[in-house]
Amino acid sequence: MEDDQGALPPREDFSAWYNELLWRAEIMDVRYPVKGLYVWFPFGFAIRKNVYDHLRLLLDREHQETLFPLLIPEHEFMKEAEHIKGFEEEVYWVTHGGLTPLDVKLALRPTSECAIYPMYALWVRSHADLPLKLYQIVNTFRYETKHTRPLIRLREITSFKEAHTVHATWDDAESQVECAIALYQEFYSHLCIPVIVSKRPDWDKFPGADYTIAVDTIMPDGKTLQIGTVHHLGDHFSKTFEIKYEDINGVQQLAYQTCYGISERSIAALISIHGDDRGLVLPPAVAPVQVVIVPITIGKRKDEVTAAACAIESELAAAGFRVKTDQRDIRPGAKYWYWEMRGVPLRVEIGPRDIDSGQVTSVTRYGEKSAISRDRLAEGVRDTLAAFTVSMSEKAGQHMQSHVRIATTLDEVMDGVQAGVVVAPWCGEKDCADSIEEKVNASILGTGIRPGFTGEVQGKCVGCGKEGKGALIGRAY
Amino acid sequence: MEDDQGALPPREDFSAWYNELLWRAEIMDVRYPVKGLYVWFPFGFAIRKNVYDHLRLLLDREHQETLFPLLIPEHEFMKEAEHIKGFEEEVYWVTHGGLTPLDVKLALRPTSECAIYPMYALWVRSHADLPLKLYQIVNTFRYETKHTRPLIRLREITSFKEAHTVHATWDDAESQVECAIALYQEFYSHLCIPVIVSKRPDWDKFPGADYTIAVDTIMPDGKTLQIGTVHHLGDHFSKTFEIKYEDINGVQQLAYQTCYGISERSIAALISIHGDDRGLVLPPAVAPVQVVIVPITIGKRKDEVTAAACAIESELAAAGFRVKTDQRDIRPGAKYWYWEMRGVPLRVEIGPRDIDSGQVTSVTRYGEKSAISRDRLAEGVRDTLAAFTVSMSEKAGQHMQSHVRIATTLDEVMDGVQAGVVVAPWCGEKDCADSIEEKVNASILGTGIRPGFTGEVQGKCVGCGKEGKGALIGRAY
Repeated sequence: MEDDQGALPPREDFSAWYNELLWRAEIMDVRYPVKGLYVWFPFGFAIRKNVYDHLRLLLDREHQETLFPLLIPEHEFMKEAEHIKGFEEEVYWVTHGGLTPLDVKLALRPTSECAIYPMYALWVRSHADLPLKLYQIVNTFRYETKHTRPLIRLREITSFKEAHTVHATWDDAESQVECAIALYQEFYSHLCIPVIVSKRPDWDKFPGADYTIAVDTIMPDGKTLQIGTVHHLGDHFSKTFEIKYEDINGVQQLAYQTCYGISERSIAALISIHGDDRGLVLPPAVAPVQVVIVPITIGKRKDEVTAAACAIESELAAAGFRVKTDQRDIRPGAKYWYWEMRGVPLRVEIGPRDIDSGQVTSVTRYGEKSAISRDRLAEGVRDTLAAFTVSMSEKAGQHMQSHVRIATTLDEVMDGVQAGVVVAPWCGEKDCADSIEEKVNASILGTGIRPGFTGEVQGKCVGCGKEGKGALIGRAY
Repeated sequence: MEDDQGALPPREDFSAWYNELLWRAEIMDVRYPVKGLYVWFPFGFAIRKNVYDHLRLLLDREHQETLFPLLIPEHEFMKEAEHIKGFEEEVYWVTHGGLTPLDVKLALRPTSECAIYPMYALWVRSHADLPLKLYQIVNTFRYETKHTRPLIRLREITSFKEAHTVHATWDDAESQVECAIALYQEFYSHLCIPVIVSKRPDWDKFPGADYTIAVDTIMPDGKTLQIGTVHHLGDHFSKTFEIKYEDINGVQQLAYQTCYGISERSIAALISIHGDDRGLVLPPAVAPVQVVIVPITIGKRKDEVTAAACAIESELAAAGFRVKTDQRDIRPGAKYWYWEMRGVPLRVEIGPRDIDSGQVTSVTRYGEKSAISRDRLAEGVRDTLAAFTVSMSEKAGQHMQSHVRIATTLDEVMDGVQAGVVVAPWCGEKDCADSIEEKVNASILGTGIRPGFTGEVQGKCVGCGKEGKGALIGRAY
């Protein structure tokens, strides 16, 4: 629908690259006439669909999908004190229906605790009803006054997956937190996105939670992006909304809860972490087009090449690949440019010489060229895509590792957060954190960093010199 | 999550039956604390998912899925005069973000023309961009002051599929209207729901359309339910939003548009038309559980029966059926009751005697019992479900036919609309329609009734005696 010619800004200039890529690769249109609201182009929506379909698949193992209303009446919204405080400046209010003022103001859900938990109070009766594990994928709203950014900081979050579970005991809820973390790790591994899992400091936890575990990744500019959170809600909300069950002895007990969410920031990470100067790079698992076939019809034998391309497309489609033949009457180079911009993992070229040698030429999005024998085409494509997926994960993992430093002094922290994140010992005190954050102009993002990212870090707190444990420090989106 | 024992009200008492069934079959919970907003139970949501996944499949042949913002700024919403007039009393307005009044009021979309068409104006440049065919599945809002009813008349329509197309000429748009009607007919045929397609009278068309074609069905109480509409928008909106393209001669031309929608009324029809005194009856194509296996483990040989049930479940699951074994420790009769309420098309019973005779006993939701040979199980189940689908369509078709009368006098019309719809000659004049409608206490719903429903009807107008053509008259939800 748009002209899209010319080069992208280099990815090093991340902000410019990101904004331009969203439009060039047809992910989102930012020209909608309200700040912070954006339009999904069909191609972007196809990526979203593949990503969220996979998220559903993972969740459906143990959860059931459901759907609650968007509008929350003021009296329900105002029930949980901490929760309101966390959201009161960000909530959109519906005050009129037609020309009539409403009796009860209605909040657009910023998240759905206050919509779901009054119903949970009706649904949960006995220990036999537990655990209860539901999720929904919905639009939510935040009146952001900060700088908005497509997929990252929005006024309408169009793709919020939120799960809400209810358990008999605090420990059961804690186990569910661990299940959710494992599920999110699996999800991001499917997207070839490396993550850091840590426990948010108390002052940064979800309003109304006992604690919050966060999933972060590192963007190309070294800033972290929170791409998932898991909250142990304890009995805060069950007290407020009276979610109680009769235990095995016939005694009424308060339930314990968790909730956890992922938004379209997952797509922002997908785009940003894998993309390069030529555009998107998509993991085969979620690419709307996994294989593009480009017939090389220069010279004679045009019909023969076209027929061969057609046969290849049928064969790959039958083998289950999302495949497309580009038969437009433009130069092959222009086609390469077009599909590279859109992140297609594998290009298959077929020309007279390929036909003569009983092969096709395959070129991955990283530019690795090889010949695939025509008589084991599907198998060859499958192997090439699998190897490509592995390289994507490795490349992304290496990028992340290269942006992590271990620091033992404030100077080292200050230096490290220029280009990435730092793990440094911290005593755990809020005052000390404030002073560190001010000095290094970065935030203490979490503690209890999960294994697989750095080894265990401990020693003298970089702020005060008392005994400390490894804390994740960085600049966050 | 709820006790659900005891009989439903008889389906003859449609309103009571419907309300009770929604809860008993776990479709929707009506206890959400805002009028007109309801909660999808997981089982209801699973039905919705299957129905809408199929709708996507049909649309994806020729359309692309996309997603536009929910919030429409007042200045865009107010652009198209007829359109506003049609919606001004029904629109919810967001006036505050946090504690701050907004500069520009934001409407919750009642439908998305005013959100989508400003973007179409940017996207459509040349004849090569046409036709443009997009759709989205979203929540929309109407401040209903009338009596609300789950899935039928809502304040939050949770499942609005709306397609919006752009064409070079009025005729191209008209062809698209016909494509959309065919698509909707195919969709409802998949749900075994018979439909009547007619052109709405001018005063009842979509605000801002050239004309509206509606898809209606007849509910058990004889009232009609509009379950789909297709609008030819002419150039009304393209004038307002300046959607223009450069034609092949380099001349700027106004584009022509259509839009068409289906909401969760499709689910209301599905439930109501097929259900009976014992609960839901679901077409195999969309049933969350297609086959329930009930092991008859009374007496000895319990382990043998359990193992046989398990093997049957694996075999049917591997053959692609959505299958479940009910191993709860309750009477078989209670299991039958439970799964009948949830509309499972086929029950497979397996007991010692079945094992001995190398068969299973199958019972359809209509109660037709037969034996399926164990060694052609999947084939037998497939055949039985296919035959069951055919009977569902036939049964629903017969119900509809029995609620349609052809009338030639006002008395016959008055009589016919007590129990269904009437097709009677009408002159086409608005004044005459008003007088007919008042006398028979029913509405003129449409003209140009599509074939397959009644033969052609013409003759003296039942209102004024002038020459008339067949009009559909009935009482609508």
